[in-house]
Amino acid sequence: MRKIYITAASLLLLNVISPAVHAQKKQVLSAIDAKVNALIAKMTLEEKVGQMTEVTSDVVSKTNVADHQLDADKLKEAITKYHVGSILNVSGHAYSREHWYDVISTIQKAADQDRLKIPVIYGIDAIHGVTYTLGSTLFPQEIAVAATFNRDIAHKAGEITAYETRASYIPWNYSPVLDLGKSALWPRIYETFGEDPYLVKTMGAAIIKGYQGNDVGDKYHVAACMKHYLGYSFPLSGKDRTPAWIPDRYMREYFLPSFAEAVKAGAKTLMINSGEINGVPVHASKYLLTDVLRGELHFDGVAVTDWRDIQYLHDRHHIAATQKDAVMIAVNAGVDMSMVPYDYTFFTYLVELVKEGKVPMARINEAVHRILKVKYELGLFERPVGNPDDYPKFGSEEYRMASVQAANEAITLLKNNNNVLPLKKSMKVLVTGPTANTMRSLDGGWSYTWQGDESDKFAANKNTILEAIQQKIGKNNVSYEVGAAFDSLQNIDEAVSAAKKADVIVLCLGELSYTENVGNIEDLNLPPAQIQLAQALAKTGKPVILVLTEGRPRIVTDAEKLSAATLMAYLPGNEGGDAIASILFGDVNPSGKLPVTYPRFPNALNNYYRKNLENGNPDDKHGYNPLYEFGTGLSYTTFSYNNLHISKPELKDNETLTVTVDVKNTGQVEGKESVLLYTSQQYASIAPDTRRLRAYDKISLKPGETKTVSFKITPKDLAFVNDISKTVTEAGEFKIMVGDQTQSFNYVSAATVPSRTGRL
Amino acid sequence: MRKIYITAASLLLLNVISPAVHAQKKQVLSAIDAKVNALIAKMTLEEKVGQMTEVTSDVVSKTNVADHQLDADKLKEAITKYHVGSILNVSGHAYSREHWYDVISTIQKAADQDRLKIPVIYGIDAIHGVTYTLGSTLFPQEIAVAATFNRDIAHKAGEITAYETRASYIPWNYSPVLDLGKSALWPRIYETFGEDPYLVKTMGAAIIKGYQGNDVGDKYHVAACMKHYLGYSFPLSGKDRTPAWIPDRYMREYFLPSFAEAVKAGAKTLMINSGEINGVPVHASKYLLTDVLRGELHFDGVAVTDWRDIQYLHDRHHIAATQKDAVMIAVNAGVDMSMVPYDYTFFTYLVELVKEGKVPMARINEAVHRILKVKYELGLFERPVGNPDDYPKFGSEEYRMASVQAANEAITLLKNNNNVLPLKKSMKVLVTGPTANTMRSLDGGWSYTWQGDESDKFAANKNTILEAIQQKIGKNNVSYEVGAAFDSLQNIDEAVSAAKKADVIVLCLGELSYTENVGNIEDLNLPPAQIQLAQALAKTGKPVILVLTEGRPRIVTDAEKLSAATLMAYLPGNEGGDAIASILFGDVNPSGKLPVTYPRFPNALNNYYRKNLENGNPDDKHGYNPLYEFGTGLSYTTFSYNNLHISKPELKDNETLTVTVDVKNTGQVEGKESVLLYTSQQYASIAPDTRRLRAYDKISLKPGETKTVSFKITPKDLAFVNDISKTVTEAGEFKIMVGDQTQSFNYVSAATVPSRTGRL
Repeated sequence: MRKIYITAASLLLLNVISPAVHAQKKQVLSAIDAKVNALIAKMTLEEKVGQMTEVTSDVVSKTNVADHQLDADKLKEAITKYHVGSILNVSGHAYSREHWYDVISTIQKAADQDRLKIPVIYGIDAIHGVTYTLGSTLFPQEIAVAATFNRDIAHKAGEITAYETRASYIPWNYSPVLDLGKSALWPRIYETFGEDPYLVKTMGAAIIKGYQGNDVGDKYHVAACMKHYLGYSFPLSGKDRTPAWIPDRYMREYFLPSFAEAVKAGAKTLMINSGEINGVPVHASKYLLTDVLRGELHFDGVAVTDWRDIQYLHDRHHIAATQKDAVMIAVNAGVDMSMVPYDYTFFTYLVELVKEGKVPMARINEAVHRILKVKYELGLFERPVGNPDDYPKFGSEEYRMASVQAANEAITLLKNNNNVLPLKKSMKVLVTGPTANTMRSLDGGWSYTWQGDESDKFAANKNTILEAIQQKIGKNNVSYEVGAAFDSLQNIDEAVSAAKKADVIVLCLGELSYTENVGNIEDLNLPPAQIQLAQALAKTGKPVILVLTEGRPRIVTDAEKLSAATLMAYLPGNEGGDAIASILFGDVNPSGKLPVTYPRFPNALNNYYRKNLENGNPDDKHGYNPLYEFGTGLSYTTFSYNNLHISKPELKDNETLTVTVDVKNTGQVEGKESVLLYTSQQYASIAPDTRRLRAYDKISLKPGETKTVSFKITPKDLAFVNDISKTVTEAGEFKIMVGDQTQSFNYVSAATVPSRTGRL
Repeated sequence: MRKIYITAASLLLLNVISPAVHAQKKQVLSAIDAKVNALIAKMTLEEKVGQMTEVTSDVVSKTNVADHQLDADKLKEAITKYHVGSILNVSGHAYSREHWYDVISTIQKAADQDRLKIPVIYGIDAIHGVTYTLGSTLFPQEIAVAATFNRDIAHKAGEITAYETRASYIPWNYSPVLDLGKSALWPRIYETFGEDPYLVKTMGAAIIKGYQGNDVGDKYHVAACMKHYLGYSFPLSGKDRTPAWIPDRYMREYFLPSFAEAVKAGAKTLMINSGEINGVPVHASKYLLTDVLRGELHFDGVAVTDWRDIQYLHDRHHIAATQKDAVMIAVNAGVDMSMVPYDYTFFTYLVELVKEGKVPMARINEAVHRILKVKYELGLFERPVGNPDDYPKFGSEEYRMASVQAANEAITLLKNNNNVLPLKKSMKVLVTGPTANTMRSLDGGWSYTWQGDESDKFAANKNTILEAIQQKIGKNNVSYEVGAAFDSLQNIDEAVSAAKKADVIVLCLGELSYTENVGNIEDLNLPPAQIQLAQALAKTGKPVILVLTEGRPRIVTDAEKLSAATLMAYLPGNEGGDAIASILFGDVNPSGKLPVTYPRFPNALNNYYRKNLENGNPDDKHGYNPLYEFGTGLSYTTFSYNNLHISKPELKDNETLTVTVDVKNTGQVEGKESVLLYTSQQYASIAPDTRRLRAYDKISLKPGETKTVSFKITPKDLAFVNDISKTVTEAGEFKIMVGDQTQSFNYVSAATVPSRTGRL
């Protein structure tokens, strides 16, 4: 079956890309455009609109039956009557590769029965590994990957996930999240690369390159989907899919760069923000979907809606008086594909709208061109289903070790009083707390199921924190009492009794799994029961090692001040339990750094890239005062920074500043250090951020070893968005900060005169 | 001395205004312009720039001496060398009228020694009465005035405050705050008229008319100062004077209307927001200070900076590389007067900048014209100091009763389980809690001192809640234990013991006085000690009457759920203790309604005028769920709403819809009811708010009595700001809601086609 589609063109695509082949590839790509155009020329309006229609797998499955049992009649209706271009994975849980082979094969066979035999593109949320396939490699969530400050880890995670997604016969991954993790409250902050625009954009580009490889059409790569364009992550209330207030200037300054970088990295598709910005639902914004996305970013891939979002324009946002108006507004604004998801109303209305002249055919052709092009690029016409035997590394030890490394480098040591860590393996350890013995608090949402609520079943062979510690030091050295559930006290007395008999307490607090609106909260404080457990245990006088596994930085101040050491583990994935144990007992030296600010109080949620105004007056008792600042992360060794050097005191247009700094391991053990370079403009026409991350690199140093780290800074790296929404670099004094080192330079430019309209 | 300046023109101004005189007044006003022009023609650059300079009273006072002891040399320097146009009251505390007479007379005598004899304008924060004058009438703070939903009370408060301010020889009041009280965290929310734009704008216009009267130049009125233009009240962090993110559309939709209405009401002056909006300090925004304020709102009065805000452009906002640049940027943006406040750098730099051609002389002349004009309008040239004998009503019983009425109508009954209130006067009452026996928690900030921290001394003759209850029911019936301080436990055991002996517990929780950055908080929860006191008292089984006196709605959920009744008293002013007692014991029937949403959780701070999106999905467990919604307020009687009627089912351009509703007192006692009319647009091009307040009226009903309340609605009342920042009313279906009644109508217009750019 699968060989039927292999053609000469696809063989070309399968070649390893060399410089010589690169030119060939360009030809191939332009050949794809020609193919697409030829195909479009043959298509009816209905066939075109069908390509723009994405329904869920439920729509083509038997009702009241789990496990994706496709319904032949429904599938035939979807393909033959409505010509649907795409099917979206929903509900259900993880399945075997064999099951996926059956599902995808059946769908593509049905597609082969339609007049034009256009393959369906199946999309899935494989956001930290192909989580819906049994035996796959689950990585730490994006927030933890960001904490590694190691682009290679993001790239590798993307590469392995792409391989295993293709091994599940699926070519389209709704990942990565490129949203700025700016709000500690937002239930999807763990799906982001943190709060810093530069970190998000560099990590995002790295994982996209991993997903798509050099040739997205080979059998090991998938189309990435940048999401959620644009401004999804900062709802005013912190609750998912609620209104955001984001001025255009800050949209461009903080939220847009990761998408711009992803387009440059070649991302094939994009998913649209379900929210509304300043009262404008993004699905209705021609400005964002066309003017900015196409006109400024030059993105030429597919823009797909998120879940039911065209229908929501009518019944949630109330900006379309009818469902049909909603379709007109969204498609005219620039939507290419509608995740409808449960019916064919989109199809019916859009066909009518085109016939009525309310949506131009040119808009339809544009959208369909993009959709067909990515299908060609993915090789779906030639190879709609992969070869089961082509993926020997699926779920392999090699891949597992990549996840282990990611977790090892992510977990962040925030406090280590008197070097209480690492612990001796001979110690008697009490493990306690609601997150100590569940995979849900390691994997988070989007793990085997949407809400990650069955990870203890599906990842039963993986180690929880408790199990990993038991393996590491022997069961005889470990006692366990849960002490508290997530939001209620349990056997706190037993936990305290056990603590008295132990040498040290490993207290595991945090959150259960969740995503989207299910994860909404109205109080950032960790539930009182968990704080009370910490307080009761601390009273024993035994050292408390606080291990946090959580999707967002919940307020733990009253517990954390009682700890001897604090480890932030984020959601470290399937290997997270082992990674935590390895760090606790010194087999791994921690090297993660916080990719977000850890707040101290529930109503003090500033980010590190604050304005000077947020530092308060000298007499202001409430300046910026988080529990732990962005970039915090300790090691079992120490590092010193010396000799920060800049190549010139004055930077001119088209010049590059070279910055070097010597980093030395001044401690006793080998360790990794992420070297972070910040700049700070002293005065600018828009109030400048106190500092911004502009570069980072991660190095490994043996005891006593020194390495010189080098960075390049150009005027463009120092730009900001001014009052008329232009990205400019204004002349003036800048500071460069690396570690505890500081240097100053002047940027000199005749070109930029500050605009002073004072527009909002 | 004071008669020297009385001229024929000023006598004209002193006339009562009749229609015939109105024309004369217009002539007088235009004569003022001529006088101003003539004066400006005589002025040197230095004399002009001096008029634009405002220094604090400290600058012309003896150092290290309290009580405004003017320093003759410093005063002479200020007037003769720098020609300062204005002096600002700061620091110190309340003084006698006699002291004020001496201060103002001395200043004006000094002004009379300068070449052009231009009187100084002295400005003061008389924000709820002339709080810096001993024996003055202190009203509830603005938030409480808003809770009355009675414009007459705002107007009367303005009128009396103006009278008593003039009785203190001061003609310029830095009031009202017209900022939208949108953030529960912001430490100045109590200084606002609440969260609703319509409530803020109508209350604001009413108090301005009270301040300024028909003729601001008579001896009973003062120049109002609208503040703080624009967008001051919604810093992202909730902390005072920290950055705000406000898109232009919402600035116009929510924050601008109160200022536009105030300009229409004739407000003479305006103070500028110290914050930065989207990175633009408002003091540097030509867009806001000139394009919008002058070009759109047609304001022609004086725009004065807030405290040190031009200097802050350099050293806090960092948008001016030098202090001199800061002056250039601010004055060119549209600042008329600089509250420097401590030196003459503004004067020196501005003189240089004009000479260098960096600030045009036309800008200077414009600013000086506005300043001199308001001085003429206020009658300062003719009567720079008032006549002490002209103010017999100062601090009178009549005025005190106006404050009593304001407090009576403000205090809001939020809960009254089983009609536990009103209490019988024969009951044994325990009064407890940190706010029970301090005037600071009734008066708040800006009372006798900046932070209101000496109210127990200065208002010693006024009743705290405890004292008022003792007076009301006799000391023998009242026991008192403080139980807890504001943020620490005190004698909780004694409080519990006393509770056991009492019939009922009046538990007084809330906040101490504060304003500005001193009031910043990082946790909206009321401190745990106060919650614990409530919990301990509730365990006695005695009914807990919770009385809240606080400047903002602190989270009290865990205490409030234990109360039998809850009274929100805001900051009710000097008569607030008596008003609370009168309501508790049934001498007054409460009629206040919440002018803000009372949140249930610290991270759920939505306002009532939310978007549909904020109601969540049907399956969303976290929709809008405050402790008490905007507009909540119970009575000791009950009201029914019937027969909501609209004059037509279809509203066209230039038509008016008449809405009537019958309100009946269905209970046993006389009561007042604020009737609130909301509208809701079903679909619009910008996501519509679920509902918006469009009209309100307060009526009084005897038991069994019915009144028909009538409102007028025009298409303009239904407008919103669209995606291209235009204020439009779009055709479509609207709902009108009054009480539990609903009607629908259609607005039909050929004029408005929805814009669909989707701009942010």
